Amino acid sequence: MTVLILTCEQDVTADMVVAELHGAGVPVVRLDPADLPGAVAISGEYVHGAFQGHLSVGGRLVSTSGLRSIWVRRPGVPAARAAEPSAWLTEEASQALYGMLNGTGARWMNRPDAALRARHKPWQLHLAQRTGFPVPATLITTFPQAARDFAERFPDLVVKPVSGTHPQDPPRAVPTSRIAPDADFAAVAFGPTLFQRRIAKRADIRLTAVGDRLLAARKPAAADADEVDVRFAPSPGPWQPADVPPRIARSVHDFLRRAELAYGAFDFAEDADGIWWFLECNQSGQFGFVELDTGQPIARALAHWLARDEAESEQAAPSPAPAH
Amino acid sequence: MTVLILTCEQDVTADMVVAELHGAGVPVVRLDPADLPGAVAISGEYVHGAFQGHLSVGGRLVSTSGLRSIWVRRPGVPAARAAEPSAWLTEEASQALYGMLNGTGARWMNRPDAALRARHKPWQLHLAQRTGFPVPATLITTFPQAARDFAERFPDLVVKPVSGTHPQDPPRAVPTSRIAPDADFAAVAFGPTLFQRRIAKRADIRLTAVGDRLLAARKPAAADADEVDVRFAPSPGPWQPADVPPRIARSVHDFLRRAELAYGAFDFAEDADGIWWFLECNQSGQFGFVELDTGQPIARALAHWLARDEAESEQAAPSPAPAH
Repeated sequence: MTVLILTCEQDVTADMVVAELHGAGVPVVRLDPADLPGAVAISGEYVHGAFQGHLSVGGRLVSTSGLRSIWVRRPGVPAARAAEPSAWLTEEASQALYGMLNGTGARWMNRPDAALRARHKPWQLHLAQRTGFPVPATLITTFPQAARDFAERFPDLVVKPVSGTHPQDPPRAVPTSRIAPDADFAAVAFGPTLFQRRIAKRADIRLTAVGDRLLAARKPAAADADEVDVRFAPSPGPWQPADVPPRIARSVHDFLRRAELAYGAFDFAEDADGIWWFLECNQSGQFGFVELDTGQPIARALAHWLARDEAESEQAAPSPAPAH
Repeated sequence: MTVLILTCEQDVTADMVVAELHGAGVPVVRLDPADLPGAVAISGEYVHGAFQGHLSVGGRLVSTSGLRSIWVRRPGVPAARAAEPSAWLTEEASQALYGMLNGTGARWMNRPDAALRARHKPWQLHLAQRTGFPVPATLITTFPQAARDFAERFPDLVVKPVSGTHPQDPPRAVPTSRIAPDADFAAVAFGPTLFQRRIAKRADIRLTAVGDRLLAARKPAAADADEVDVRFAPSPGPWQPADVPPRIARSVHDFLRRAELAYGAFDFAEDADGIWWFLECNQSGQFGFVELDTGQPIARALAHWLARDEAESEQAAPSPAPAH
């Protein structure tokens, strides 16, 4: 049984997991959907009530029924490297590839439809509330008056884009910024804006969930209280392994089960009382930088999840999609 | 409790359903995501573990907790009519709108993530096999040799795009065409192609499923056997109501349950033996033309599904997403 990894060519994080899988003697096929059609070929036959599918990449032919698991790591846009790329060909290639793979019995990390839903920050916040995480008071709005009212109730605020990306092409991360309560909020009418009560944090927490396995790391907050986004702050030191409070662990498992995710990278702000405040869950979040600092075996945990047999599987969530 | 309809301005099909809902005295809000931000405003607050959301359109303010159901009919692209539209603003508006609506307790017709998955034809064919529909032998491939082998085994073939759309911008429907078994299949290497055994059909069947309610219609096939696509054939007569064979009804219910869809428009080819061969299920398929010909109360069935209380709901599929 083979592990299929969908990712682009240059992907050091995938390399780490592939090395683990090779070390364990697990067959791996790695392909970039951008190479379909072209270096990647696909075929599926529906005859006499049964489906038989095949993938070919780099001279290797793999039966889709022989796929154990599929890791959607950082795939390119289908048909992006075709001889004559077009939006139509991308749709055709995407339908063929993901449509066929969705019909296999392979376990997904993560299922594309679950991943799409989980990308929505407003949905994440609501699910985080329901699964028992402390969530900082948050407002997402295009009503200037709602923003003004919120700023009166929670004067110590930060502002973020709803989607977490910067209004640039190509998008890049934008720092979370503080905002004065007497700011002019009229501009929110031109685009949904996310305001959040600032957590006076003593540390940032990154919790990486791989199936049932939780690996957390802590990094002390920068001394400068105005720098609220750890990605842009001068680093006061490396990430250090951290214990996961049992209550947080329960919430993480519940969140992933309801979100139907097998993998998630959770960001928390730890306050002076040690409370972990939920900021977000990135279903495709990086983990290499944490593993580098802490030495936590995240790549190995991922390889183990991808490699293990169906029988010993705990599946983050039983798929409501057609089973095999 | 209000019914929310997401659709563009010019939508006669939505008008039919709105008229039914008005007739029944059910509050309706209709909005086009293209008008967010702008004529449509949205706000959601996450405070003390609870979520409170509001939508405003045409001077009306609606609480998201007061939404009974959401019909995703033919929505525009979020922020398409904004003062300064951009891909980024579309992503922000889409996240805000769909992310908040996904967190409400409203029933969906259809849930966006389920709809996305259901659009994949290869996945449909596999699910149709599993749920007991007769499915014509089909091949989707970028391997020229696989196409040649398939054409030898099934010489009477039709060819279709995988996605059902034409390689044009804007896309339009492309007729399904017959293809000679000795055709040159080399071109499939340049794009996934769908080949299907041609069903010698005596009629086309359109079955519209609205929750548990199934309404089927039949149209005799054109005399010209070369015209395999009813949309492009000279019409031999109007659609007529048809009885649904119990076996087909069971398969339809099973298909919708596993696909987590509340609505689906199924297309079948009926052969000389009366067998209904599964061609496709369009989760957003039109129904106005069938209602016009047959007088079947499809708009009313839809209005009834949207209007009814949670208590009497049979939900096409229990949502694994966070409940309310």
